[in-house]
Amino acid sequence: MDKRFLAVLGLFALLASAPVAAQQAAAGASPGARQASQNRMVFQVNEDDSRKWHTVLANLNNVQEELGKVEISVVVIGPGLGMLKADALTANGVQDAMAAGVRFVACGNSMQSMKLTKDDMIDGITYARAGYVEIMRLQKLGYAYIRP
Amino acid sequence: MDKRFLAVLGLFALLASAPVAAQQAAAGASPGARQASQNRMVFQVNEDDSRKWHTVLANLNNVQEELGKVEISVVVIGPGLGMLKADALTANGVQDAMAAGVRFVACGNSMQSMKLTKDDMIDGITYARAGYVEIMRLQKLGYAYIRP
Amino acid sequence: MDKRFLAVLGLFALLASAPVAAQQAAAGASPGARQASQNRMVFQVNEDDSRKWHTVLANLNNVQEELGKVEISVVVIGPGLGMLKADALTANGVQDAMAAGVRFVACGNSMQSMKLTKDDMIDGITYARAGYVEIMRLQKLGYAYIRP
Repeated sequence: MDKRFLAVLGLFALLASAPVAAQQAAAGASPGARQASQNRMVFQVNEDDSRKWHTVLANLNNVQEELGKVEISVVVIGPGLGMLKADALTANGVQDAMAAGVRFVACGNSMQSMKLTKDDMIDGITYARAGYVEIMRLQKLGYAYIRP
Repeated sequence: MDKRFLAVLGLFALLASAPVAAQQAAAGASPGARQASQNRMVFQVNEDDSRKWHTVLANLNNVQEELGKVEISVVVIGPGLGMLKADALTANGVQDAMAAGVRFVACGNSMQSMKLTKDDMIDGITYARAGYVEIMRLQKLGYAYIRP
Repeated sequence: MDKRFLAVLGLFALLASAPVAAQQAAAGASPGARQASQNRMVFQVNEDDSRKWHTVLANLNNVQEELGKVEISVVVIGPGLGMLKADALTANGVQDAMAAGVRFVACGNSMQSMKLTKDDMIDGITYARAGYVEIMRLQKLGYAYIRP
């Protein structure tokens, strides 16, 4: 009888802990939990304005210096794409930022309407079909949205 | 004895599963969970700039083409309201977007200060008292914020 | 035997309820849950444009009038800092908004590059090292992002 009693208790303890574990696993996978534990930012750049581009590069540097660990994506749309062209004055700054872990994403729809191909762009950048869809995707992953 | 033992086990299994169900129900109702499962975007337009209005209409089209299923609200504030006037060059584009499921929201405070009434506006758009409160409300529902 | 049986049931009921309580506590502490229950907005101002500053002050007023209870932070970056200078035409408006509970945050990096010190600024504002890091921090706390 005692054995059976202990068996019930043991099995009970085992099962009772399962929901907690399941819940913690679920919480760990939720955007909210990721938001709370990680530093993630998505910057959006739309302007054909080299002063703004240099300011954004300085911003990225400041943010990385303050936080140390931070995941940053810069999504570049429309006339902003000039920032990511291979012959842009910002090319060195963009490459430095990529070396420091920043991810740059060019909007494919904008490239098409501006008649730009990947050959025109800085090596190592990423491409999305629609920049705004990429920004939505990142916000769903807990990235804070920043529009400089 | 065996019956009682089985009854304890059965009751235990029943109750042990309840927290998981409750948790899943709660997760299903949370903004984070909605974010993960649905595509929702809120665009904000403030500018008196017909080129920007047409670009935004093209953006909406691109996003819908890529995602298929997506809930989009466009909240229009201040001088941006020109985009939603019945006599605007964008009126046809706005009506096409509404037919494709996009929701347009005019800021009531802006309308008042610009002396606009509903009679001046495109039929079928929605009205909010303060556009920024509407944008907050949508972000709380998991809408990704986009500022073109 | 009956006592033991009841003890098992009682202990079981106690333990089975623990995961639910733990889960509710966790949900209460998550950004998603805070988002759902509280009105929180972070406004970002970057422009050296006194008309925009006055518009933003009017926006804050409208939002507070509509919602009653709302936590608002205004993060001011780069040339926008003119809005928070002690000698700005917006100084009275900013002080009124602070009296009504709005929190204004100046970007420390911007202050440095614009050679501004706290003595130049309106009394009672808050300072952050990088304005964009402050904005990320607030979004992680469930603040809706607004870029007027």
